[in-house]
Amino acid sequence: MSVLRRGTNLPRMGDFNQSVILEAIRRSGEGLSRIELVDATGLSAQTVTNITRRLLGDGLIEEAGRTIKGPGKPRTTLRLIPRSRLSIGVHLDPAVTTVVLLDLSGAVIARSVRRTPATDPMHVIHSMADAIEALLSRAGVDRQTIAGVGVAAPGPLDADRGTVIDPPKLHEWHRVPLRDALADATGLRVALEKDTTAAAFAEVWTGDVPPDASLLFVYLGTGVGAALVLDGEVIRGRSRNVGEVGHIIVDTDGPQCGCGRRGCVEVVCTPQAIVEQAERAGVLELGRSGDDAESVDGRLTALCRLAESGDSGALAVLARAAEHLSVLISALTNMLDVDRVVLGGPFWGRLAPVYLRELPDLLDRQSATREVRALPVAGSVVGDDVGAIGAGCVILADVLSPRASSLLLEGGAS
Amino acid sequence: MSVLRRGTNLPRMGDFNQSVILEAIRRSGEGLSRIELVDATGLSAQTVTNITRRLLGDGLIEEAGRTIKGPGKPRTTLRLIPRSRLSIGVHLDPAVTTVVLLDLSGAVIARSVRRTPATDPMHVIHSMADAIEALLSRAGVDRQTIAGVGVAAPGPLDADRGTVIDPPKLHEWHRVPLRDALADATGLRVALEKDTTAAAFAEVWTGDVPPDASLLFVYLGTGVGAALVLDGEVIRGRSRNVGEVGHIIVDTDGPQCGCGRRGCVEVVCTPQAIVEQAERAGVLELGRSGDDAESVDGRLTALCRLAESGDSGALAVLARAAEHLSVLISALTNMLDVDRVVLGGPFWGRLAPVYLRELPDLLDRQSATREVRALPVAGSVVGDDVGAIGAGCVILADVLSPRASSLLLEGGAS
Repeated sequence: MSVLRRGTNLPRMGDFNQSVILEAIRRSGEGLSRIELVDATGLSAQTVTNITRRLLGDGLIEEAGRTIKGPGKPRTTLRLIPRSRLSIGVHLDPAVTTVVLLDLSGAVIARSVRRTPATDPMHVIHSMADAIEALLSRAGVDRQTIAGVGVAAPGPLDADRGTVIDPPKLHEWHRVPLRDALADATGLRVALEKDTTAAAFAEVWTGDVPPDASLLFVYLGTGVGAALVLDGEVIRGRSRNVGEVGHIIVDTDGPQCGCGRRGCVEVVCTPQAIVEQAERAGVLELGRSGDDAESVDGRLTALCRLAESGDSGALAVLARAAEHLSVLISALTNMLDVDRVVLGGPFWGRLAPVYLRELPDLLDRQSATREVRALPVAGSVVGDDVGAIGAGCVILADVLSPRASSLLLEGGAS
Repeated sequence: MSVLRRGTNLPRMGDFNQSVILEAIRRSGEGLSRIELVDATGLSAQTVTNITRRLLGDGLIEEAGRTIKGPGKPRTTLRLIPRSRLSIGVHLDPAVTTVVLLDLSGAVIARSVRRTPATDPMHVIHSMADAIEALLSRAGVDRQTIAGVGVAAPGPLDADRGTVIDPPKLHEWHRVPLRDALADATGLRVALEKDTTAAAFAEVWTGDVPPDASLLFVYLGTGVGAALVLDGEVIRGRSRNVGEVGHIIVDTDGPQCGCGRRGCVEVVCTPQAIVEQAERAGVLELGRSGDDAESVDGRLTALCRLAESGDSGALAVLARAAEHLSVLISALTNMLDVDRVVLGGPFWGRLAPVYLRELPDLLDRQSATREVRALPVAGSVVGDDVGAIGAGCVILADVLSPRASSLLLEGGAS
């Protein structure tokens, strides 16, 4: 007999409803009364009372004064205790390693940024552990409140083994057991996630998208990646490798790619590809420096500054880059029929002025559903630390976020 | 305050578990005992007893004898009553309109195929209603058992209005209110679905994929479309238009497309594009007939027969077509990280021999996760009526299939 769907039961339902209530309180900011929670979640007054009693007992929420609204009796506001649970987010990027300490609301309590050592992977992992310890002692938090460490790394990953397979620009990293090595070095629980997927968690957890949004997240890092959120749930994929879009063709006249074809995202849309286009167009001086992460970063900054100052050559290069990116985005949004596109990642801030001007029209023209509805495009509000913050949110989401799929009983082979 | 996630409650949980049990019984074929249902679903014996009592009372299942397994007392087998609920599936294709009558197990009780009249849309819809009535009276079924009519049509659709926007090769069809017009003409409840999405429902409902499969369905019809199943749930998209992949670039040297670019799926991978490539290569005689649906169909059949007989030119054209299709499939599977690819649709049967030989290697070479896992490729087992059968399954699934998302309470604005 084949594997069958599992049912659900009362304890599962209770866990789910508890996380629904906690998320409603978390998202409200200044807090909600029990009556407001009944309205917001559709749950009965009795269920809300029982669950909030449990959350108060666990120290995750607190009563924060009474308010009088209308003729009824005063309502007690229930508010998150942000410091009751913390998480650590780490973003391993070829250039820099960012570590953040988040509270339960997703707010950054402390952060540190260090150059990623160009040494062997184990040394990098120990340096990461040092950065975490330094941050914890600087912030002076109780280690018992740390729910875990999320690490965002470039994909593809082997999620089962917790290994990073072949991250670009980190040449010695082949099948490095990042998850277990960092857990050993810190004594903390570690979860490994793709940087792009982590960014989508940050967007859902701390961004201003509705909790049931379906969105395509386009991540502009050393590589260009994507992440997918459907009905508020981040889709990780069967092997946790959603979003490998580097070889989607976006320019039939584009340069040769290592894969054997021409015009792939990887050789057209990445920061390195864009600065090379600027060099070929004579907008940037040719061959001034190498193609390491730091140099590409500096040259892209120079290009974006030129565009900002009105340089028509720089503007043309970036407008063309936006057009190529629109081909990728349209391919994915027409396939996936999401309701919005959000762009982010370490290079987004610099590219945003030109991209946000160009993309909406480009995407509208290529939309298969333009007769039915619009496709809003926005930049992430999370900022350049989106990878690290997202990695921390993976831990918070795991603890607290309601996922309809978590309602199903485990197991299933029979 | 923003829209919040909804909780779940006991009646919702009961409905979900009932559909889990019904699906377990349906999928088992010859039936299951209560003990086997407990094992298969993870639900308690008491829950299984209560729910099966209700299903027996509703006439959806029956007790079908006792079996003795091991030393315990004999177990009563519970079996689906397939004729207790029926559905009608209609596939509107530019060439032919197929109507099927399905029982609750997804088996075809009766079918009819008629040429789609090349007349105005309202005439086509009335002809569709006539075909449904003829089928019902021929099959001699009780109209009360019909749960509804599912209509599969080429996208994009306006799901809210139940209209077909601009189906290819059906030139007079612009914003035709297919759903409501057919409901008026038949007096039955009608659901409208994209043909590609309907095909995915057929695969999940009647195919032999595991109930929690994540798969990309590639639909080879007049156009090439795709559908997505994640963790056993067919993903319809926010406007129910998932799978519009016609303008993903697959051949940088391909012909000009109406969209302004070159080498899109629409001008490379469709049956019409393939027969045109065969004509340019001198494998098929040039310009023997028009580009209407019927002529393309005949010429593709001729090309596939040539390949079957060992004609090297025909084989080369089809191998190249498989390679182009692999570029599309890889773009989508690398983005979506599904665990299998299933191909189907009206042209699949003819293309299968060459495509199933070529695709596995092509996809493996292009897989971003090939170091982590394999990506099985298979043909749909549903056959050429997949669109119509799928449309009928949309109705059955709506009535009976467990969807975790259905656990959430409705509403949500507050």
